[in-house]
Amino acid sequence: MGENVSLEDFLNVAIDAAKRAGEIIRKGFHEKKNIEHKGQVDLVTETDKACEDLIFNHLKQHCPGHKFIGEETTAANGITELTDQPTWIVDPLDGTTNFVHGFPFVCVSIGLTINKVPTVGVVYNPILDELFTGIRGKGAFLNGNPIKVSTQSELVKSLLVTEVGTKRDTTTVDATTGRLNRLLFKVRSLRMSGSCALNLCGIACGRVDLFYELGFGGPWDVAGGAVIVEEAGGLIFDPSGKAFNITAQRIAASNPNLKEAFVQALGEA
Amino acid sequence: MGENVSLEDFLNVAIDAAKRAGEIIRKGFHEKKNIEHKGQVDLVTETDKACEDLIFNHLKQHCPGHKFIGEETTAANGITELTDQPTWIVDPLDGTTNFVHGFPFVCVSIGLTINKVPTVGVVYNPILDELFTGIRGKGAFLNGNPIKVSTQSELVKSLLVTEVGTKRDTTTVDATTGRLNRLLFKVRSLRMSGSCALNLCGIACGRVDLFYELGFGGPWDVAGGAVIVEEAGGLIFDPSGKAFNITAQRIAASNPNLKEAFVQALGEA
Repeated sequence: MGENVSLEDFLNVAIDAAKRAGEIIRKGFHEKKNIEHKGQVDLVTETDKACEDLIFNHLKQHCPGHKFIGEETTAANGITELTDQPTWIVDPLDGTTNFVHGFPFVCVSIGLTINKVPTVGVVYNPILDELFTGIRGKGAFLNGNPIKVSTQSELVKSLLVTEVGTKRDTTTVDATTGRLNRLLFKVRSLRMSGSCALNLCGIACGRVDLFYELGFGGPWDVAGGAVIVEEAGGLIFDPSGKAFNITAQRIAASNPNLKEAFVQALGEA
Repeated sequence: MGENVSLEDFLNVAIDAAKRAGEIIRKGFHEKKNIEHKGQVDLVTETDKACEDLIFNHLKQHCPGHKFIGEETTAANGITELTDQPTWIVDPLDGTTNFVHGFPFVCVSIGLTINKVPTVGVVYNPILDELFTGIRGKGAFLNGNPIKVSTQSELVKSLLVTEVGTKRDTTTVDATTGRLNRLLFKVRSLRMSGSCALNLCGIACGRVDLFYELGFGGPWDVAGGAVIVEEAGGLIFDPSGKAFNITAQRIAASNPNLKEAFVQALGEA
């Protein structure tokens, strides 16, 4: 790209990459999968790798000066430090367990951070053909239509989405279910979709009111969705209520009405 | 209908009703909803009522000698006893909380019992346009294509789906999260979709491996899905491992490989 590239240009490059990778995911979704294991309850597929190669090649071709962080390359090469430089953070296939089982919440998540701030986000679910996009200062969209977070202001009427993660040590599982126990007395109901990025988009379009997740894989799970939530009028924060740190593997999201009560409920949890 | 009606005829009548009701649901899904409350965390919508009227009128027109049990009419008129006569058991809108929030797991569930045995089942998700059907002895289908339960035989590789229900007393919530705690050490991961009938269909088409739910609304949540699971090669049973009782508000489902280990894990829970 030349010197006059805009954030819209970056978004369009990311959409192209997401749609192409989505095509691979859609094809693989109903086919027999060639599964490898990364830990007891995590899976990585050939599709995952093919999508990351495709997305990185596409982004590098159009944005040669940028930095890149991806789930698969990080797993192979170790963590790449996030700097202030424009950095593409990619999860080529969020919801790999869903992909393997055929549960239709899978997506490509692509985020661009500038000065460590999520600035461009694309989350694409190729099974439901839902493309969520956002550019800082320019709104959030689902398949081109503007989206907004819910207007709910009461915790007891709110739908909460979260995930149980992949760690199965006693401390983690006890903390997870203890938190759920205490939250169930305060919210309407609970959903678990199996995709962190799609949970963020669920907040952005008001399908769910509250989301938190602790101990997810890395910044690639949230880099795309974070700007989409914020541009839809939502808030992204640490479950403690403090500022969101994209490298901390802790996230919460809600509309502005609910944040205080949600943080209080999480804090007690 | 005349005297030579077959189960296929009953299925087609139910499909017609489900598709017409699904059209109402689809239209309402993105519109502002007029919500009433039935209890703290349960919702009933005008759509729910319109769909039940439509479905019952359609079924009664084509099957005038049959009995009818529906969620909304039961809520209004009290429980209708299930007899050996052919009985249509209908949930016009399973997943009402999802409907209100715009979470895409909503469906029409229609089941026909004969001698109290689920014999014809239709579960239609109009948002994803997925039509699950089954006739006892004649297989199960998704949009006309045969479906089968998963072949998974290891609990640790199995995806579990369940729901937290609507009761929020301490005994129920503690039992719910205690059970989740113990199951999380045994299964791969956990999903909650918000629709009992679609969870059964998830078992039937192998998207999930294990399902249980305790304390759901009534037989209308399971009458359609039960025969679909069984015709897809799955088992429907009480979470204790005993025989399934359609009026007991307790259900579990899995493929035959997993039942014994699943019941053991549930029994410990």
